[in-house]
Amino acid sequence: MAVPIIRPCSISLSHRLFSPWPKKRNWVSCCAPSESTPARSEVQRSEVSFSIGTHLIPHPKKVDKGGEDAFFVSSYSGGVIAVADGVSGWAEENVDPSLFSRELMAHASDFVGDEEVNYDPQILMRKAHAVTSSRGSATVIVAMLERNGTLKIANVGDCGLRVIRKGQIIFSTFPQEHYFDCPYQLSSEVVGQTYIDATMSSVQLTEGDIIVMGSDGLFDNIFDSEIISTVSKYSEVAEAAKALASLAHNHSTDSSFDSPYSSEARTRGYDVPWWKKIAGIKLTGMKLSEILAIYKSVTSTNTLHSQ
Amino acid sequence: MAVPIIRPCSISLSHRLFSPWPKKRNWVSCCAPSESTPARSEVQRSEVSFSIGTHLIPHPKKVDKGGEDAFFVSSYSGGVIAVADGVSGWAEENVDPSLFSRELMAHASDFVGDEEVNYDPQILMRKAHAVTSSRGSATVIVAMLERNGTLKIANVGDCGLRVIRKGQIIFSTFPQEHYFDCPYQLSSEVVGQTYIDATMSSVQLTEGDIIVMGSDGLFDNIFDSEIISTVSKYSEVAEAAKALASLAHNHSTDSSFDSPYSSEARTRGYDVPWWKKIAGIKLTGMKLSEILAIYKSVTSTNTLHSQ
Repeated sequence: MAVPIIRPCSISLSHRLFSPWPKKRNWVSCCAPSESTPARSEVQRSEVSFSIGTHLIPHPKKVDKGGEDAFFVSSYSGGVIAVADGVSGWAEENVDPSLFSRELMAHASDFVGDEEVNYDPQILMRKAHAVTSSRGSATVIVAMLERNGTLKIANVGDCGLRVIRKGQIIFSTFPQEHYFDCPYQLSSEVVGQTYIDATMSSVQLTEGDIIVMGSDGLFDNIFDSEIISTVSKYSEVAEAAKALASLAHNHSTDSSFDSPYSSEARTRGYDVPWWKKIAGIKLTGMKLSEILAIYKSVTSTNTLHSQ
Repeated sequence: MAVPIIRPCSISLSHRLFSPWPKKRNWVSCCAPSESTPARSEVQRSEVSFSIGTHLIPHPKKVDKGGEDAFFVSSYSGGVIAVADGVSGWAEENVDPSLFSRELMAHASDFVGDEEVNYDPQILMRKAHAVTSSRGSATVIVAMLERNGTLKIANVGDCGLRVIRKGQIIFSTFPQEHYFDCPYQLSSEVVGQTYIDATMSSVQLTEGDIIVMGSDGLFDNIFDSEIISTVSKYSEVAEAAKALASLAHNHSTDSSFDSPYSSEARTRGYDVPWWKKIAGIKLTGMKLSEILAIYKSVTSTNTLHSQ
């Protein structure tokens, strides 16, 4: 049975203190519907900015090339972050999987302020893809933050993004795939996906929100609950990004760890042989892969906007 | 290792056939980046409409009052759907938990076409809450679909919404709570939450997308994988809504079913005593609650818009 909030309690108090109400309002009266709910002409909006930290741990066998994950961050408007994860299977075709993802991100970075893009991550993805000439393919996520706090996300494949507010996930992207381990991907080939296939979503951010973004190497190796507990320990964004990537890396090299990836694999019918099952052995870790963690903390300057 | 899509394959073919490209385009050439990606002035937009089915199964002890879940659907613009789940704990205060949720939904329905609301579910929530005079509280979700396919969602508490595309979840809301089983809630009391506390997000819909929306009774009792497999069996929206609600209801009365709710309860430290654990007994089902399922299938009329 759900509990009603009837009397003031410490939870509601602390919660209210962090809500973006004008300071002149007393929290106690903030909820009386007909009197103290601000009229629309008084709605308060925050102008957001961010702190950002990134940490990349290449696949152990790809350290010399710097890995296949590429990304860029930009301070344009509220900020732009993008990740492209080169599809590793291209190595079997004697194609360096990092070339496509790096070129794509370089072009995307160039187009960030383009008038036609106009804060639309799907248009940014289209323009960057259109001029990328390298052979290969990549999963791609682009997130553009407007100063009013709207974070727009275009996602093709299994890179990911989470938004954490007051210790709870409030938004998550979902991977798109053709079948297990074959994600949607922007490609140099005609049968790949395009910007049209991107999942387009947005979420309204507010002060104190935390954005965690990365390649599948991050989200395949640590659970959302671990992401929440890890970021709660750090106030410095660079340290938080490093801690997330390190935890994912440690899990990826731990053959006994039951990761999100191994759990998903079992759900899809991949498992150890039956004679191992009888002995109580189950499919566990490991997904040894490149790990990119981008950690972004949103801060805001409150302003009162007329509407 | 992720698989690259290099050669045409059946998966990509079927995928491509359903993508909203102009029919004059040959799918084979659709991905050549510099030539066949449509210029922005040719970007195709769909005008969306929907079919909708709803099914409500009241809590067995509340059948006489019709339950505590209230909802409304509207065909305004691309369509509006909203659910308010009256917080059951109010019964201990001798307050009928259904009064607040029903009045709130009635007011929300009245304000749908209001000029000030202007397709913003957060403003709709604010205006409806401001004029609700009943004592009580409710978790609330409001989703407004614009004709260009943008579904805007305002969510306070643990009602939920999923968007399914080609058999995969592409979007989900997340519950907000103060602590386990104490969700954020719009309330008649000053310590409750307001529209300011709503999680605001949006997702771009396209033809064939399926929206599943409901109270916590739905999402606490069936897993997302069950939602996907259930909706795939029905073409009629009313049948799908009934099947979803029935499955959730059956699970909620099955004391052996390990539901999302019981799994979450264990994660939060609620469990059977240790002597039962030794015997291999674990905390399972059941969350006997009211179940409301709203199933919405999006269809579109393709039009070519100049930009």
